[in-house]
Amino acid sequence: MIQKLIAGIKKTNAPVVVGLDPMLSYIPESITKAAFAEYGETLEGAAEAIWQYNKKIIDAVYDLIPAVKPQIAMYEQFGIPGLVVFKKTVDYCHAKDLVVIGDVKRGDIGSTSAAYATAHLGHVQVGSQMLTPFGEDFATVNPYLGTDGIKPFLEVCREEKKGIFVLVKTSNPSSGEFQDRLLTQEEPLNQDSLLTAPSGAEAVGDSNFSRTKDSCKPLYEVVGEKVAEWADSCMGDDYSYVGAVVGATYPEMGRILRRIMPKSFILVPGYGAQGGKAKDLAPYFNEDGLGAIVNSSRGIIAAYKQEKYASFGADHFAEASRAAVVDMIEDINSVIRERLNLRL
Amino acid sequence: MIQKLIAGIKKTNAPVVVGLDPMLSYIPESITKAAFAEYGETLEGAAEAIWQYNKKIIDAVYDLIPAVKPQIAMYEQFGIPGLVVFKKTVDYCHAKDLVVIGDVKRGDIGSTSAAYATAHLGHVQVGSQMLTPFGEDFATVNPYLGTDGIKPFLEVCREEKKGIFVLVKTSNPSSGEFQDRLLTQEEPLNQDSLLTAPSGAEAVGDSNFSRTKDSCKPLYEVVGEKVAEWADSCMGDDYSYVGAVVGATYPEMGRILRRIMPKSFILVPGYGAQGGKAKDLAPYFNEDGLGAIVNSSRGIIAAYKQEKYASFGADHFAEASRAAVVDMIEDINSVIRERLNLRL
Repeated sequence: MIQKLIAGIKKTNAPVVVGLDPMLSYIPESITKAAFAEYGETLEGAAEAIWQYNKKIIDAVYDLIPAVKPQIAMYEQFGIPGLVVFKKTVDYCHAKDLVVIGDVKRGDIGSTSAAYATAHLGHVQVGSQMLTPFGEDFATVNPYLGTDGIKPFLEVCREEKKGIFVLVKTSNPSSGEFQDRLLTQEEPLNQDSLLTAPSGAEAVGDSNFSRTKDSCKPLYEVVGEKVAEWADSCMGDDYSYVGAVVGATYPEMGRILRRIMPKSFILVPGYGAQGGKAKDLAPYFNEDGLGAIVNSSRGIIAAYKQEKYASFGADHFAEASRAAVVDMIEDINSVIRERLNLRL
Repeated sequence: MIQKLIAGIKKTNAPVVVGLDPMLSYIPESITKAAFAEYGETLEGAAEAIWQYNKKIIDAVYDLIPAVKPQIAMYEQFGIPGLVVFKKTVDYCHAKDLVVIGDVKRGDIGSTSAAYATAHLGHVQVGSQMLTPFGEDFATVNPYLGTDGIKPFLEVCREEKKGIFVLVKTSNPSSGEFQDRLLTQEEPLNQDSLLTAPSGAEAVGDSNFSRTKDSCKPLYEVVGEKVAEWADSCMGDDYSYVGAVVGATYPEMGRILRRIMPKSFILVPGYGAQGGKAKDLAPYFNEDGLGAIVNSSRGIIAAYKQEKYASFGADHFAEASRAAVVDMIEDINSVIRERLNLRL
């Protein structure tokens, strides 16, 4: 699927992903009114409004871009009817030949991560049948639980030729609270020794830790190094099935992480509405002009609410989204041209 | 809801939660056969089997325990029909007056975390209506994104009198890979300074960090300290709406974290099937004999597969589960008695 993503980026000349993160407040009244008239002010009514809104946006932009990234939380908040529309959106995007990145940020202990990997990227066995639960092409994954929370995803990626983007450095203001903390040169001993440590021990002292060759570095770099390891074990052709999430809002970290994870595609949130600027994104790309895909959600799907695209009017919101995608592609490509020129 | 949980623990004399994490392989053939006969070997068929299995277990144990913890991944892997059964299970447990801990391990940037908090603990506005998407009482939450990924959950907890358990030290073997890493005495400067740092900077050097009063400690302790802060801002009577997840498999860390987060209930996974022993759990409890609730999933719901309960036979799996709950309650209570005796 990483090959399909790369082929799509080359074909459209657009390392851009549209985030399908609908909020009821984005949706023009004509759509919500019709949905509520049919289903009432219910979860079904809200989900129907989102579905109609998504469909029009996808129809308006699908030929310009290689991929979409529906954020499942925005559907989950409308319960089962919301998730039915999440699934319909995944299927509709597939019918338009788009790569679908499920922004689900799942992650748990081994057997549970295996169930999440099955849910979003795999097939589940029911009797003699192998069935598709949600069927995205990529999923975003949280690394806090360590390798055995990631491994089941790697297994499904290899089997199904699908991919993951592991959270490394997120785009939000407080992402540094834990992710930027500097780690000492020490790393924990093999966990088995902790498992069998006497429970009466008063504190985890230095005796539980051994010195290694690691130098002092922030947590996001250590997570990035793990991503590079996982990526090596899951290679496509030039790039791995294992990518990373690095926010557009932290370009100096993007530069470092690009080098640490050379074979990983970087999914870049935070461009546009969250404050990330295209000019800062050159370091996220490799010398081949590939290696990153930049997401915009609100900036595209609610473009008609911006002054720049207000003249389209609410009833032409999808055309406003198309115009915003065209502008974003040009914005990002100007940076890649700069990146490639630097190489000459 | 923390008050209801505590009242339930006192009434049942059982600081125990049953994890409803069904796998098709646990379910006796008589149930799957009937479900497949009605719905075929489909996602609906699998979900129906899980529903019938859950219902029998809940009917058999509900009067013994204060709470259940359905693991949403086990339902999500059966797509929409699986999630319909997750919701039915939540509602059925509520009808039996059980507290429901949604083991969902969600977490994202602010606006997205707000949607997850709404989905699992809150109400969503649709037109003039306030509707309930999933309606659990507690949710488990991943802290990797920092405070602004947690804050929306705190707001919903305050409004709805519900609660969260934040992952601090998870029960799995590789949880130490990141969670146990020792942090230096330095912590990152305010993120704003990083946001405006020139993107040309080659590396995040020492100049971006300032010395603080923190001493050298592992990441899980630093996360634990944040949980204590969040807990203080969300108090019930004696305990906070904000709890923590600390695995039974790391008792020496449980002891430390109990002190760091005195007002937080600790949800303890890893007892039983994952290797955690009751005798190690005394440090997870406070001097009042409260402060922790121990989960068992496989050990209860698939008890009939253990040698100890095999004589019940597959058709009496629910009675085997009841016997396993009775044994677990006695096992945990023996430890609490010891904990209380120590105080005398």
